[in-house]
Amino acid sequence: MDIGLVGLGKMGGNMRTRLRNAGHTVVGYDRNPDLADAGSLAEMVEQLPSPKVVWVMVPSGEPTRATIRELGDLLGEGDLVVDGGNSKWTDDQVNAEMLAEKGIGFVDCGVSGGVWGLKNGYALMCGGTDEDVAKVQPAFDALKPDEGGFVHAGKKPGAGHFAKMVHNGIEYAIMQSYAEGWELLETVDLVDNVPAIFDSWRSGTVIRSWLLDLLVAAIEDDEHLEKIAGYAEDSGEGRWTVEAAIDNAVPMNVIAASLFARFVSRQDDSPAMKAIAAMRNQFGGHAVRTEPPVGGDANPDANPDA
Amino acid sequence: MDIGLVGLGKMGGNMRTRLRNAGHTVVGYDRNPDLADAGSLAEMVEQLPSPKVVWVMVPSGEPTRATIRELGDLLGEGDLVVDGGNSKWTDDQVNAEMLAEKGIGFVDCGVSGGVWGLKNGYALMCGGTDEDVAKVQPAFDALKPDEGGFVHAGKKPGAGHFAKMVHNGIEYAIMQSYAEGWELLETVDLVDNVPAIFDSWRSGTVIRSWLLDLLVAAIEDDEHLEKIAGYAEDSGEGRWTVEAAIDNAVPMNVIAASLFARFVSRQDDSPAMKAIAAMRNQFGGHAVRTEPPVGGDANPDANPDA
Amino acid sequence: MDIGLVGLGKMGGNMRTRLRNAGHTVVGYDRNPDLADAGSLAEMVEQLPSPKVVWVMVPSGEPTRATIRELGDLLGEGDLVVDGGNSKWTDDQVNAEMLAEKGIGFVDCGVSGGVWGLKNGYALMCGGTDEDVAKVQPAFDALKPDEGGFVHAGKKPGAGHFAKMVHNGIEYAIMQSYAEGWELLETVDLVDNVPAIFDSWRSGTVIRSWLLDLLVAAIEDDEHLEKIAGYAEDSGEGRWTVEAAIDNAVPMNVIAASLFARFVSRQDDSPAMKAIAAMRNQFGGHAVRTEPPVGGDANPDANPDA
Amino acid sequence: MDIGLVGLGKMGGNMRTRLRNAGHTVVGYDRNPDLADAGSLAEMVEQLPSPKVVWVMVPSGEPTRATIRELGDLLGEGDLVVDGGNSKWTDDQVNAEMLAEKGIGFVDCGVSGGVWGLKNGYALMCGGTDEDVAKVQPAFDALKPDEGGFVHAGKKPGAGHFAKMVHNGIEYAIMQSYAEGWELLETVDLVDNVPAIFDSWRSGTVIRSWLLDLLVAAIEDDEHLEKIAGYAEDSGEGRWTVEAAIDNAVPMNVIAASLFARFVSRQDDSPAMKAIAAMRNQFGGHAVRTEPPVGGDANPDANPDA
Repeated sequence: MDIGLVGLGKMGGNMRTRLRNAGHTVVGYDRNPDLADAGSLAEMVEQLPSPKVVWVMVPSGEPTRATIRELGDLLGEGDLVVDGGNSKWTDDQVNAEMLAEKGIGFVDCGVSGGVWGLKNGYALMCGGTDEDVAKVQPAFDALKPDEGGFVHAGKKPGAGHFAKMVHNGIEYAIMQSYAEGWELLETVDLVDNVPAIFDSWRSGTVIRSWLLDLLVAAIEDDEHLEKIAGYAEDSGEGRWTVEAAIDNAVPMNVIAASLFARFVSRQDDSPAMKAIAAMRNQFGGHAVRTEPPVGGDANPDANPDA
Repeated sequence: MDIGLVGLGKMGGNMRTRLRNAGHTVVGYDRNPDLADAGSLAEMVEQLPSPKVVWVMVPSGEPTRATIRELGDLLGEGDLVVDGGNSKWTDDQVNAEMLAEKGIGFVDCGVSGGVWGLKNGYALMCGGTDEDVAKVQPAFDALKPDEGGFVHAGKKPGAGHFAKMVHNGIEYAIMQSYAEGWELLETVDLVDNVPAIFDSWRSGTVIRSWLLDLLVAAIEDDEHLEKIAGYAEDSGEGRWTVEAAIDNAVPMNVIAASLFARFVSRQDDSPAMKAIAAMRNQFGGHAVRTEPPVGGDANPDANPDA
Repeated sequence: MDIGLVGLGKMGGNMRTRLRNAGHTVVGYDRNPDLADAGSLAEMVEQLPSPKVVWVMVPSGEPTRATIRELGDLLGEGDLVVDGGNSKWTDDQVNAEMLAEKGIGFVDCGVSGGVWGLKNGYALMCGGTDEDVAKVQPAFDALKPDEGGFVHAGKKPGAGHFAKMVHNGIEYAIMQSYAEGWELLETVDLVDNVPAIFDSWRSGTVIRSWLLDLLVAAIEDDEHLEKIAGYAEDSGEGRWTVEAAIDNAVPMNVIAASLFARFVSRQDDSPAMKAIAAMRNQFGGHAVRTEPPVGGDANPDANPDA
Repeated sequence: MDIGLVGLGKMGGNMRTRLRNAGHTVVGYDRNPDLADAGSLAEMVEQLPSPKVVWVMVPSGEPTRATIRELGDLLGEGDLVVDGGNSKWTDDQVNAEMLAEKGIGFVDCGVSGGVWGLKNGYALMCGGTDEDVAKVQPAFDALKPDEGGFVHAGKKPGAGHFAKMVHNGIEYAIMQSYAEGWELLETVDLVDNVPAIFDSWRSGTVIRSWLLDLLVAAIEDDEHLEKIAGYAEDSGEGRWTVEAAIDNAVPMNVIAASLFARFVSRQDDSPAMKAIAAMRNQFGGHAVRTEPPVGGDANPDANPDA
């Protein structure tokens, strides 16, 4: 099929390659002219035969919204937009409605796979009507792994991004699961070779997984992760997962705690723990201190926590 | 090698088979005479050539402690006991010391693999001196998977069970991670086919794992898990993991929350939530009610939470 | 001052009484004619001298939004609306803007106090310009406790409800704190008289509080809370607190866990724990069971958690 | 009554004063001769009339255990030891048994009150037989507040310390509750005056408490707590509370999370978050970085969390 592809960064660029390797004709556009096949979004659209299909692969939020608004002006009846970025599912609902008013179809598609996707294929979770999804199916087939890795998650716009969002929420919590276990093993004296323990878990255990493989690769390079700071961003999808849980009264202790751990990791000092220290100082009757240890020796005889 | 094997239940029985398939001579003992090769523990020990190696595979706690005490009386200088059950690592330290006084070696070995172990091999995490571990290595080699799945976690007694314990703690949290994501997807209207979503994640995603495979198998059989109650036991190792974290001042929000979720699942009614309901009734000024909904309409105009 | 009061339920009715006791003239409106002083919202507005001040005290969400929209049509330049309900702070921003276009002022006011407010006064947290707040100050002074209990939290609309929202989030977590401690004391054999322990904490301890007083009152009536179900609603503000934390990358483990505990308390069976049980069954190789215990005896020899 | 008092630090010294103010005869011993009334433990014991009562008020763990062992040698039939420190309840059971073999009574007593105790009285939670508690009652009456603040928590040794331990667990979680709310209010732009908000909550709200009073005192001095580090010790009792919960299968999400937050506050860098960052780097296909931001721009086009 012919497909327009907007956003040729690490993800989009590799996806263009994988689509072309499968025999599809891709017209790529990127703000960076070194990467682009067309000089503008309009030019890209012009080069596509009708009905036109354009896959948007740019950062979520305003960049994606702006691109889709512009495509709404450039495309027409019977054309179709795929949002393959990390958009919030609520954006999809707005975008789908806006495009539908112009007779333009919409498919949202969560994409997982990172740098391995080029070689192994991308996991794809899409949302949209059967008719719209069918129009993109050849591209999905080219992008996905040989076996599995594709799902039409629901007919409503946002179903694909919602599924991908939950995937990422689960991912946060699985990463935190290994991380907590690793920290405990790192901390105790009892075991001698933590990387060997983790490596052994890759075979025959209940917890073998791709994330475990990645962690093993990391600690085989740098046993105590001394070259890396304990700092993790979050990309929005973890937040939205917890928000969706709250909206739906779904208890989500583990995914929420994983998200909060990332927040903590980015704080220089914790305001909450300042408040804890301040209260302890107050009930210990101590002058306020300016640096740690704040409370350790506050009450050196018997009752440090009053 | 020749090896005694105490406990021929589901795990022990399959391990006997796998050891024999590898050419080892196993003398098995079980309280159930239908399963046993020897009529008593003493008889089993007698049948082994010296130096004797006995693998204990019975429930953790008193059953294992009692078996090892008895073996301490039956074995002698140069013999060796392997505890392959789910003992707490602190038990290993006591057992190793008791046996060492009699010149008997000790290796603790956490075993993972369940019913798949017979075919695919068992993941093994062991603790003990190099010399003691070497004596059991032929059995380890027979039991483990073809590739990987074995680690000598540390020279101190308990290192193997400690590693296995942390494995199980991680396992609890990974299971909870998928479970929370599944509940959210089950709850929302947006997605149509939750089993297909989970199945698609098995290929190309960051969260592909063996536990995911198992969950997919379960929900392909019973989409909404209607035939299964939301009830989960815990086997001790999750508890010990959190206790070890606390002893070592290691934050462990996710594994602890997973453990607590199991506790909650086994309660008919939550005492804590009774206390919450009681406080809400008090500040709402309401008569105490005997059944739900307790608080929903407690303050029907404007301020239900005061 | 003269003030209109919309919503004469338990909260609004008592507030009318307290305002009148302080010498203010209140024209109350309620859909229930038995409670109302005026036959309609329009009639209530007509009876007020200009500039008119109307306090809205109806359930948050659509009822409050609808009432304020209607007041936007009935009031005019120089008049003022107070939203004293439990509205989300984002609603305030919309309402304030809508009213401002018509020259109508707006103050949002979180109100705490429940049934004790009539006698002891209501804690008030308000948001709005200094000028607008000043117009309502006589009513605030009548409603608040003799000492303290009033704050002008911020000049932007929503500041008052935001402060009240955080108050409620904290409230959830403090209630959960006592509840967890109570459950532990209820569960162990070691202590004989849990109500007496809690009662003793009301004097001289670090944890004395009004919520403790309430819990003591409850367990003095019903030692084991046998007459009350472990079931708790949440009123929106706990949810919004966690959402605001997520939006602002503020870690909020304790308040979030308190909210999730309420969600769990309202579930007949936990979908997440069904998923846990299903995975355990799979790796135990067991037939699916239809009722608990699901996993307890799944692996009766040695490795129940694989 | 006559009473020996071991440990005259901040707590013990003030308790001696309060006991003497009530007309009791106190013989105090401390390793610091400037504080002590007697030159040695033996000398202190000698000065007491029989039956002798000795109150131990030294740091928990080995210092308390050693003092009680020594008292076991110095005291005799009919005498009595009170452990008023922060001992673990399991220590009480050992100590009580050891003393009982010599006919010496034992009462454990958790003491709360900090520096305010001298003036306002100490909250006391004690465990022991009715007969033993009666022997100390005059001292309890002198130490406790005028109203309430005393409980005989149970007849078994350890009941008092267990109750005090749970008190401290609850305390951790209540402090964390306020701290999280404070951090959120500090972080948002919407509210102008956070100390005024907290101060207003001291009257008329559901969350008024002594800990709130302390936090208000702290932030009135130092609005943003700039002079204090976000660092908090824990004194053992929080840990034991969570351990006891785990032993009794009591879900304890909030108290556990409060404890873990303290652990985190004392870490220079988080090993767990290093592991998270390492995994993110791996699936992003990035070179390992040595400092933050690790992951923020890892995948600048579309899929930072793969």
